[in-house]
Amino acid sequence: MWDALKPAEPAGTCDLRFFQERLIRMAVGWFYLSFYSLWFLGLMCIILTIYWVQLWHGGFAWDGTLLMFNYHPVFMVVGSVVLYSAASLLYRLPQSWVGPKLPWKIGHAMLHLLAFILTVLGLVAVFQLHRRSRITNLYSLHSWLGIVTVFLFACQWFLGFVVFLLPWMSVWLRSLLKPIHVFFGVVILSLSIASVISGINEKLFFSLNNATQPYSNLPSEAIFANSLGMLVVVFGLLVLYILLVSSWKRPETGILTEGQPLLRDGE
Amino acid sequence: MWDALKPAEPAGTCDLRFFQERLIRMAVGWFYLSFYSLWFLGLMCIILTIYWVQLWHGGFAWDGTLLMFNYHPVFMVVGSVVLYSAASLLYRLPQSWVGPKLPWKIGHAMLHLLAFILTVLGLVAVFQLHRRSRITNLYSLHSWLGIVTVFLFACQWFLGFVVFLLPWMSVWLRSLLKPIHVFFGVVILSLSIASVISGINEKLFFSLNNATQPYSNLPSEAIFANSLGMLVVVFGLLVLYILLVSSWKRPETGILTEGQPLLRDGE
Repeated sequence: MWDALKPAEPAGTCDLRFFQERLIRMAVGWFYLSFYSLWFLGLMCIILTIYWVQLWHGGFAWDGTLLMFNYHPVFMVVGSVVLYSAASLLYRLPQSWVGPKLPWKIGHAMLHLLAFILTVLGLVAVFQLHRRSRITNLYSLHSWLGIVTVFLFACQWFLGFVVFLLPWMSVWLRSLLKPIHVFFGVVILSLSIASVISGINEKLFFSLNNATQPYSNLPSEAIFANSLGMLVVVFGLLVLYILLVSSWKRPETGILTEGQPLLRDGE
Repeated sequence: MWDALKPAEPAGTCDLRFFQERLIRMAVGWFYLSFYSLWFLGLMCIILTIYWVQLWHGGFAWDGTLLMFNYHPVFMVVGSVVLYSAASLLYRLPQSWVGPKLPWKIGHAMLHLLAFILTVLGLVAVFQLHRRSRITNLYSLHSWLGIVTVFLFACQWFLGFVVFLLPWMSVWLRSLLKPIHVFFGVVILSLSIASVISGINEKLFFSLNNATQPYSNLPSEAIFANSLGMLVVVFGLLVLYILLVSSWKRPETGILTEGQPLLRDGE
């Protein structure tokens, strides 16, 4: 049970206590249900993206051909959506609420760095194909939105590192910039998902363009990849929901003291 | 000046008072700057969408042809993005903070209804073209996302009307459902913008598909419509920002009493 959420109460209020405990159990249960649903959805997004390009587009090769392009959707979904979300939600884990914050900050920064590296590899995959096939870079709205999102991601990581990890920044400046950091965190995820949606849509118009099996006939690939796009949207909305539920946010310093138990043994 | 934000203070604290007044002026100035920027951006989104289809796609006609389709992007940008945002932000106007809430609720509901009607007209425009040209409905990921967004919008309006406008709902249920209503308000706007982005991208792949002027050569229409898409994104992010700044939210009942002045004369 979530002890930290339990307010101090006078003795003898059995009904109230029972009711409060039920509410707390429900809140904890709801958190873990959301959390495990998120794991499942994120994993499904990754598996279905790999399955899509493996089954319908011949798999992967780092050789500048269309097989290299196949890394693009996979790295973007893994890096800029799933891993990015996992990194963003790190502070929602009750384990992060107690004890020193620094290890969690480093974890947050490192996971985001990994997400960023995968995102950049996703860009390399498409730029390499364009270079080899002499296709113009960055002409579609999907690519404009995508490149702006990656640029914002880079700025966010760099500024986050300077302001929140390097030791010489004042607490005042950190608390001033924290809401901006959180806001742009949500913005970057939203833009990533909009980029993924427009990207899947664009890819399907490219690949399902022959007369016998056009996109408009909804062949199996179209249904599969459309469903994948909708799944990425559902995943993103669940991340947004978990981020915004205020009672799941890490309490400000002083509310929880170091070493105070959050979860009793066996629960 | 924003009197409602001024805390009670002891006499003689001139420096503190000066500092507080400056902060309040800055906050009010920042609010109005954001507010007028939003008006300007929203107006630009509408004008540029009309200009795009007028200049490059022959304007409008309600006749089931491609000229009828041209209503689709315009109604979607006006209805599901700009008017939807204006309706959502109604409670951020300081004028809505005092006096009875009911007229503002009715205004919120009516503006959203108008936004919904325009959105449905936008759907009619594309379905009519498809019917006449025997094109399959709802096959692309853009259309799947769009139709789910419109469905959510319909549910949100209907439930909002039943729960928050009809008089027999309990205050307890209203306060329980309000965060969900607000969350889905943000969700629907985000999905609308993702739909608009994928829609503009898709339309440009359709219309710029000839060998002399492909999308990848970035002709003037491509640059124009890509920029329009990015402007819609900037508009959406500004709406999200104004919605999320907590000090601009309507205070809970009891914090401001009816008739308490928010703005002094001449400011």
